[in-house]
Amino acid sequence: MKAAVLTQLNAPLTLEQREDLAPSGDSVVVQLHAAALNRRDFWITQGMYPGIQFPAILGSDGAGVVSKASDSPAASWMGREVIINPGWKWGNDPRAQGSAFEILGMPIDGTFATEILVPAEYLHEKPSHLNYTEAAALPLAGLTAYRALFTQGKLQPGEKVLISGIGGGVATLALQFACAAGADVIVTSSSAEKIASAIRYGAQYGYNYNGTDWVGEATTEFGLVDLIIDSAGGVGYRSLLDLAAPGGRIVNYGATAGPPPKLDLFKVFWKQLHLIGSTMGSPSDFSEMLHFVNEHKIKPIVDETLPLNAVNEALEKMRHSTQFGKITLDCRD
Amino acid sequence: MKAAVLTQLNAPLTLEQREDLAPSGDSVVVQLHAAALNRRDFWITQGMYPGIQFPAILGSDGAGVVSKASDSPAASWMGREVIINPGWKWGNDPRAQGSAFEILGMPIDGTFATEILVPAEYLHEKPSHLNYTEAAALPLAGLTAYRALFTQGKLQPGEKVLISGIGGGVATLALQFACAAGADVIVTSSSAEKIASAIRYGAQYGYNYNGTDWVGEATTEFGLVDLIIDSAGGVGYRSLLDLAAPGGRIVNYGATAGPPPKLDLFKVFWKQLHLIGSTMGSPSDFSEMLHFVNEHKIKPIVDETLPLNAVNEALEKMRHSTQFGKITLDCRD
Repeated sequence: MKAAVLTQLNAPLTLEQREDLAPSGDSVVVQLHAAALNRRDFWITQGMYPGIQFPAILGSDGAGVVSKASDSPAASWMGREVIINPGWKWGNDPRAQGSAFEILGMPIDGTFATEILVPAEYLHEKPSHLNYTEAAALPLAGLTAYRALFTQGKLQPGEKVLISGIGGGVATLALQFACAAGADVIVTSSSAEKIASAIRYGAQYGYNYNGTDWVGEATTEFGLVDLIIDSAGGVGYRSLLDLAAPGGRIVNYGATAGPPPKLDLFKVFWKQLHLIGSTMGSPSDFSEMLHFVNEHKIKPIVDETLPLNAVNEALEKMRHSTQFGKITLDCRD
Repeated sequence: MKAAVLTQLNAPLTLEQREDLAPSGDSVVVQLHAAALNRRDFWITQGMYPGIQFPAILGSDGAGVVSKASDSPAASWMGREVIINPGWKWGNDPRAQGSAFEILGMPIDGTFATEILVPAEYLHEKPSHLNYTEAAALPLAGLTAYRALFTQGKLQPGEKVLISGIGGGVATLALQFACAAGADVIVTSSSAEKIASAIRYGAQYGYNYNGTDWVGEATTEFGLVDLIIDSAGGVGYRSLLDLAAPGGRIVNYGATAGPPPKLDLFKVFWKQLHLIGSTMGSPSDFSEMLHFVNEHKIKPIVDETLPLNAVNEALEKMRHSTQFGKITLDCRD
């Protein structure tokens, strides 16, 4: 097998030839056709992630065919087209992951490889309307977007939604999911090009979050919003409190702009707001997400596909956040 | 009638003799037996409340007997013992009050009087296990505590709860409600005496929030908590994020210590926390609260009862926050 291995920080991944994998107990070998990048992979290469271990094969997202299985119930998966739930050992509490929770791809060997070993419980049938590349674009971003919007955000049809910082995998899938669920959606970005793309995918309006009064404009054109999906935080967070309707929800799955420097609690209690944290998702979030994607025939947006050999180029692209949708890898030899 | 009237800021209320009230349409006259103070009354006298108007009779909480009614459906209330829902014109959205929402007692003439005019829709039967003083201690604090704990906080039996800053009306009723609902409850205060009182009323432990590691002590002795009811905010808010269990909820109905100077969003999303704002409550919150109080035979804690003539002394006591439970007024002539 071939794999892209993290051997040190702030350096390219090393492409290694390794011994082929063997199935073991309830774990099967999946021959990967496609993988996808997440911001998590980039953070790890920069040392900006807790508990980094070497060597490790990165990559949380993958789709392929089960190619080897031991003589166990897992053998029923042989030859089937699958995608992998990257959230392992969530635990028993639907409200939050337990302390054993791990995300596929460091320390567990991940999907930037031609093969991967996966416990059968994390295998799911590849949605039949998706090719391998589209399927690989789905798992971690789809899981995160689904939990943020539905499990935590309790999105209802007809509600008004803001997806801030459109462009990344989670945000673009959140846009697609929210539109499919019958919501009215607006987006923010600092890129006019990304706003134009979002509008092609169903957003009604887009606003430059560096604009002087984008909240006022959005309020006039679109109205206050019921649900905001944000991964930035930072100084811009206060604008979200302003744009939220009374009783509205703001779900954060990240804080790329750092912690908000002040929290206007008066606004929070007077407007009866709900500020909700969300990260990844549980096995039932993953199953529900797949059901939703199949039901609405959603196709994740793929920005670009590069060969596994070019994984370092793909990571470099992630650094600059120029993509709209997912960056994927072709893992076939 | 006699009434305590706000005529200027930072000055005692003026005790006035006024003409007796007359019923009008669906509004009846309630002969007040008892009233109670809320922090809101004190803030208004200090000019620290939006939309202050003169002259106004303060007071949101009252209990008494319907003494005059016009010939309308409201006449069926004649002679009945009542308490008054102080949250008027909430609107149609259970998630949040509408822009017409008003709290009884400025600008609407309130309960620091011997009589008050009340639309019949805000009348409720006085719980039969409460005397007038106890009944008057219930409305605004009970409504606020109920919505924070149940409607917004979704308290479940067996959950662990922290009520921070025990002593005031909302916090002491939240303690009583949470214990009655089968929760395990701890409290914080800077007063050892208030902590001792809280333990007499059912709290399992109490911690001085100025202590160096009260969160560590609470975690060891009691464990992380599912639901926190806070009205302080400020620098201490970060400790609440630490003490919250994964998936936990922190409900704020105030920010007496000011806005938290920073919000650790990383902790919020990694722990999947819900930070929820709550203020007052809707008519259905009020009805549910009364039902709960009747079912569990809860008696609000009354710190002290003063005659209506001594309302300024009562307000002065509120300034120093030394009370445990409600400060009430005897409104009988």
